[in-house]
Amino acid sequence: MADTNGKDSAGRDPDSVAAALSQVGDRWTFLLLREAFFGVHRFVDFQRNLGVARNLLSERLGQLTANGILERRLYQTRPERHEYRLTDKGRDLFGVTVAIMRWGDRWLSDTPPLLLTHAEDGGAVEQELRCADCGQVLTARDVRYAHTNPP
Amino acid sequence: MADTNGKDSAGRDPDSVAAALSQVGDRWTFLLLREAFFGVHRFVDFQRNLGVARNLLSERLGQLTANGILERRLYQTRPERHEYRLTDKGRDLFGVTVAIMRWGDRWLSDTPPLLLTHAEDGGAVEQELRCADCGQVLTARDVRYAHTNPP
Repeated sequence: MADTNGKDSAGRDPDSVAAALSQVGDRWTFLLLREAFFGVHRFVDFQRNLGVARNLLSERLGQLTANGILERRLYQTRPERHEYRLTDKGRDLFGVTVAIMRWGDRWLSDTPPLLLTHAEDGGAVEQELRCADCGQVLTARDVRYAHTNPP
Repeated sequence: MADTNGKDSAGRDPDSVAAALSQVGDRWTFLLLREAFFGVHRFVDFQRNLGVARNLLSERLGQLTANGILERRLYQTRPERHEYRLTDKGRDLFGVTVAIMRWGDRWLSDTPPLLLTHAEDGGAVEQELRCADCGQVLTARDVRYAHTNPP
C-alpha cells in the first residue's frame, strides 16, 4: 500500500483480517465453505468430498454454526438428520472464496481445474478491487490505509 | 452457485482453493501477508506488530519464502540482516487480503478499525466479482462452475 512503513503499524489494533481469520482462517473451514457454495449441505457429502475425519468435520461444522456462517436445519425426523446451509454472513464469503480460487488458478495450476463462469452468458468471473468514487480498478499501490481511531 | 448439488462434487479433483490454502491457509501466514502489504519487511517488526513467537515467525517466513510469496534480501552485512519483500505472486494476494478484511468489516466489527481508501481521491475500496464479458457484478447465484476435465 502507498505511504506506509513499519513504524505506522506498531501496536496495531486487532483489525478485521485478524477477526475474520479467527472465524475462517483454517484450511478445513475454507474447504467446507467451498463445498457449501457448490451446494453440499449434508454431513455425509462433506465427508465423502473432502475425505475428512468425522470428528474434525463435526468440530468445524459446529464452529461455523456457532459463528453464524452455517445454519443447522432438521431435514428428516426418523432418524433425526440435519443439514447445513449458508447464512447471509456465510454467503457473503463468496468473494473471498473466489479470490482465493482465482489466485490459485493464476499461480498454482497450469489449467484451472474448476472454471467459474457467469451463468447467463458464460463470461469469465473476475475478482477486482475498485474505487467506489471514481470506479478505477485498484492495486496495492493505489490504496492507503488509516486507523479509524489513530493509536 | 447455480445449478449444482452434492452429487456433482463426488470425487472432486483438488482445485485451486485447496492448492491455494495449502500455501496461505493459515492464520499467522495471512497476518504476515497483511503486515507485508502494510510495508513491514523485517523480522523484528513482524514480531513486534503481531506478538508472535520467534520460532513460529521464522517457520512461517521460511514457508512463504519457499513458496515464492516472499523474497529474502540482504539489507545489512555487519551483522548480516535480511528483509522479506513480496514477490509478484505475493502482491497478487492483495485482493484476497482485502476481501477477507472487508468481510470482517461487514460482519465482525461495528466500526472498521482500519479504513482502506483510494490514495488519489479518498474513495472507499470495494471488492467485487464481475463478468469479464458483460461487466455485471456477480453473486454466488449468478455463477456456474464446471470441471475442465469432467471426472
